[in-house]
Amino acid sequence: MKTVVVALGGNAILQPKQKGTIEEQRYNVEMSAKSIVKLIQEGYRVVIAHGNGPQVGNILLQNAAARDQVPAMPLDVCGAESQGLIGYMIQQSIYNELQTLGIKKDVVTLLTQVVVSKEDPAFQNPTKPVGAFYTKEEAEAGMAKGESWIEDSGRGWRKVVPSPKPQEIVELNLIKTLVDAGAIVIAGGGGGIPVVKEAERLVGVEAVIDKDLASSLLAKQLGADMLIIATDVPYVAINYGKPDQKNLKELSLQEAEKYLNEGQFGKGSMGPKVQATLSFVKSGGEAIIAALSNLGEAVKGETGTKIVL
Amino acid sequence: MKTVVVALGGNAILQPKQKGTIEEQRYNVEMSAKSIVKLIQEGYRVVIAHGNGPQVGNILLQNAAARDQVPAMPLDVCGAESQGLIGYMIQQSIYNELQTLGIKKDVVTLLTQVVVSKEDPAFQNPTKPVGAFYTKEEAEAGMAKGESWIEDSGRGWRKVVPSPKPQEIVELNLIKTLVDAGAIVIAGGGGGIPVVKEAERLVGVEAVIDKDLASSLLAKQLGADMLIIATDVPYVAINYGKPDQKNLKELSLQEAEKYLNEGQFGKGSMGPKVQATLSFVKSGGEAIIAALSNLGEAVKGETGTKIVL
Repeated sequence: MKTVVVALGGNAILQPKQKGTIEEQRYNVEMSAKSIVKLIQEGYRVVIAHGNGPQVGNILLQNAAARDQVPAMPLDVCGAESQGLIGYMIQQSIYNELQTLGIKKDVVTLLTQVVVSKEDPAFQNPTKPVGAFYTKEEAEAGMAKGESWIEDSGRGWRKVVPSPKPQEIVELNLIKTLVDAGAIVIAGGGGGIPVVKEAERLVGVEAVIDKDLASSLLAKQLGADMLIIATDVPYVAINYGKPDQKNLKELSLQEAEKYLNEGQFGKGSMGPKVQATLSFVKSGGEAIIAALSNLGEAVKGETGTKIVL
Repeated sequence: MKTVVVALGGNAILQPKQKGTIEEQRYNVEMSAKSIVKLIQEGYRVVIAHGNGPQVGNILLQNAAARDQVPAMPLDVCGAESQGLIGYMIQQSIYNELQTLGIKKDVVTLLTQVVVSKEDPAFQNPTKPVGAFYTKEEAEAGMAKGESWIEDSGRGWRKVVPSPKPQEIVELNLIKTLVDAGAIVIAGGGGGIPVVKEAERLVGVEAVIDKDLASSLLAKQLGADMLIIATDVPYVAINYGKPDQKNLKELSLQEAEKYLNEGQFGKGSMGPKVQATLSFVKSGGEAIIAALSNLGEAVKGETGTKIVL
């Protein structure tokens, strides 16, 4: 039985133009669940990783709005909360979809920590603004504690955090145990809760881990057969959005590196997805980038971009 | 190898007089972890359940404070977030404590849903006020959707939710799988995320499940050998806080029922703990109510109140 790791974007659950009501998020998750269940029907063991951008953004805004009443939690803790929030919705929706189809399978979410290196150069140069706008005084208090903050064109101050590379999935053994037991496992949410090792102890850090890179690492360390990065377009394309846009059914390592150098793939969007799949393909696995709505067709090779050596 | 389910109060992590900063919560969790690890050193397989009162209270306050920017999430979703928040802290602290002692064990948090019955009489009479104070208009909008709200002596309106009895642990099989694999498992946080069954589908409901009853059910359904309810006093006592307070080293079913009828045990505090242990002892297990700081001594019978038939 083959194992596939599916990486969902945080936007698959809360779309950019939506407010993010529970009804909107539940609907989106139910649609995603229907597509994921097709993979189970095709006979795959399924592990689901997901982004958390919009959700952790909202949790940070909530933390900021209540900060005079409730001490704000650091980003690693907010990430753990978002794994709870999103994992619960996905877990329940997939279970329900399986029940409707008469398929008996356990579905579970594991809180997942991902080790990053303290020596990662990202820590020298934090670049990702996260959370709400704060006052100058609050930013200065943060900077006095060693945090990085930037002033955002008159709108206030925001914390900036590094985006280090994922090195190790802390709960890997248990994810394997559950997959072997036949469960559908949701793990590595939001790229994982970032931790560093200090003399073998784990310490949470304020950072964000790219969810596509974390999914690729998870797929590799699990020894999965396939990695599918689910997105909102059916194919990786060159000249994207231009009259001569060309959808790619296959993308080789050599072509991918050329196109990445040309800047064909958006830095915050398709670029990391292509890089994550390349890394997995180099380690011997199969990888596809496809539309979330078409996962069943994608594993059969009927749609999506297959990444090849 | 014997399995013990340990139930921690939410106050073990965020104490009533504390503000709830991350430093306070981390310190409390580290102290709890040191005590729990004693059980592992005594040779037990350990499953940890925990309350979430102070934490989900804070999440609800954060939701309320930001409600003009971010749609507020329902209580089941906030409960899932609190499982992420608390589970992460406990999981990391126990792992670190084990590493310090040179013990190699996996530690994991499983998001846990707990089924309650739609027919539970609690749904006819919601009694637990939860979350922030809202305006009359907001309360009326909630009531129009079928929610229950009460006016709280001029301070505003609060939602009230039912506290139904836990019936079934949805993720039970996987908790067992992980315990059998030798992992330390954190599950059933906050009494579990309450769900009802609608034609075999699971649907989240706004309710709170007593964490002691949920821990007792978890211990029963897991076939655990022992249930320890950790609290902040070393013994169950009668005439508690009075000059003639008497600490009980043992409490029989018959005595317990007599004392419960006499109102010896607080309704929101020791009462549910005693009831949860009675229910487990009746099903054939051992149960102890003891101070969180003394778990290692409690399993050896050196402290705590043993509940017996």
